[in-house]
Amino acid sequence: MRHISRNEIDLMERNTRTNLINCLSGFKSANLVGTQQLGMENLAIISSVVHIGANPPLLGMIMRPHTVPRDTLENIRTTGYYTINHVHQQWVEKAHQTSARYPRETSEFAATGLTSWYSETFSAPYVAESLLKIGLKVEEIVVLACNLTELVIGQIEEIWLPQDAVFDDGFIDLTRLGSACISGLDGYHGTSPLARFSYAKPDTPLASLDLTQPFEQK
Amino acid sequence: MRHISRNEIDLMERNTRTNLINCLSGFKSANLVGTQQLGMENLAIISSVVHIGANPPLLGMIMRPHTVPRDTLENIRTTGYYTINHVHQQWVEKAHQTSARYPRETSEFAATGLTSWYSETFSAPYVAESLLKIGLKVEEIVVLACNLTELVIGQIEEIWLPQDAVFDDGFIDLTRLGSACISGLDGYHGTSPLARFSYAKPDTPLASLDLTQPFEQK
Repeated sequence: MRHISRNEIDLMERNTRTNLINCLSGFKSANLVGTQQLGMENLAIISSVVHIGANPPLLGMIMRPHTVPRDTLENIRTTGYYTINHVHQQWVEKAHQTSARYPRETSEFAATGLTSWYSETFSAPYVAESLLKIGLKVEEIVVLACNLTELVIGQIEEIWLPQDAVFDDGFIDLTRLGSACISGLDGYHGTSPLARFSYAKPDTPLASLDLTQPFEQK
Repeated sequence: MRHISRNEIDLMERNTRTNLINCLSGFKSANLVGTQQLGMENLAIISSVVHIGANPPLLGMIMRPHTVPRDTLENIRTTGYYTINHVHQQWVEKAHQTSARYPRETSEFAATGLTSWYSETFSAPYVAESLLKIGLKVEEIVVLACNLTELVIGQIEEIWLPQDAVFDDGFIDLTRLGSACISGLDGYHGTSPLARFSYAKPDTPLASLDLTQPFEQK
């Protein structure tokens, strides 16, 4: 095994360190954040969406105020509403392209060929191509003292997904939906199911749950 | 598409809601958190590790004080040190078993058959079977007002990984390392590489980067 000390990390060339450290957390979710303000739409890829709680239903995401998604963060602050949309394997390239620094007046929807879609019940734009769309209302924005990044937490207001995507017990097979995952800054991956396990108890062997419940994508 | 309103979410049976909401963020990293206090070791699986920053190198994780990893959180508070270890596809079952509520005096290492390993330079236990091990020192613990979960942020003190795992530009191919990912509470997945893309710029087609740089696991 190779040992990398903190001192070695601190002395690394900047881009090398950024690539390395961004890989350490493991595989990350691939999502697009959709916002609008006065009809001007923004779309930004983000790999830091994290589960905060189920009741009330809350998702968080880490945003750096001074990097690319700054329009997105400003729209969220001003309007209070945003969408999170799963990125799928077939169009990871379009999703990655949203990270380019487009001029403020350019919509990343138009620039990348993704389609904005509005539900009758929500004010922020969804990505039509996404099979799992979530509408959120800002609940809390926490500035982290350690490096001034911001943790944006939102309450889930509505969900859009294929008719038969949800198993009887609430589980969604994301592999079948074709959701992608991310490693580092620029690596995209598909997934294959290994197992679902029962609730773990001491001294009781785990049971494997059914991962084969069929559903159609509608 | 199926529409699920906030009202429908709130009225769901508790376990169904927990399964559903835990799937929404997308694929999640699979990590084991290792801690010890007075020689008593704890090991807990966690799917909420998130990149906070590269310089200084910081990782965060969401922990619920009143659920399973409470000994882990207490050890982190008391000692200030913990490890994060990637879970690999070959032993996801052992990793999941760490989530059982063992008596306080039981080490999840012994109970699940995973092996604790100490580097000469770090006080918290690593998982010997893991190919990517990170030693961290607590930097900041933020209690989230929205539901009283805690965001634990640590500075990376050292990294252990296979000799040739790091590409020249700092990237680590986690698919080759065999790192697993998680969906929901209990779904485990392997991954397959789709692409690495160049830094995105407006009006410039993305280039694909090499994902085939060979390395041996040592």
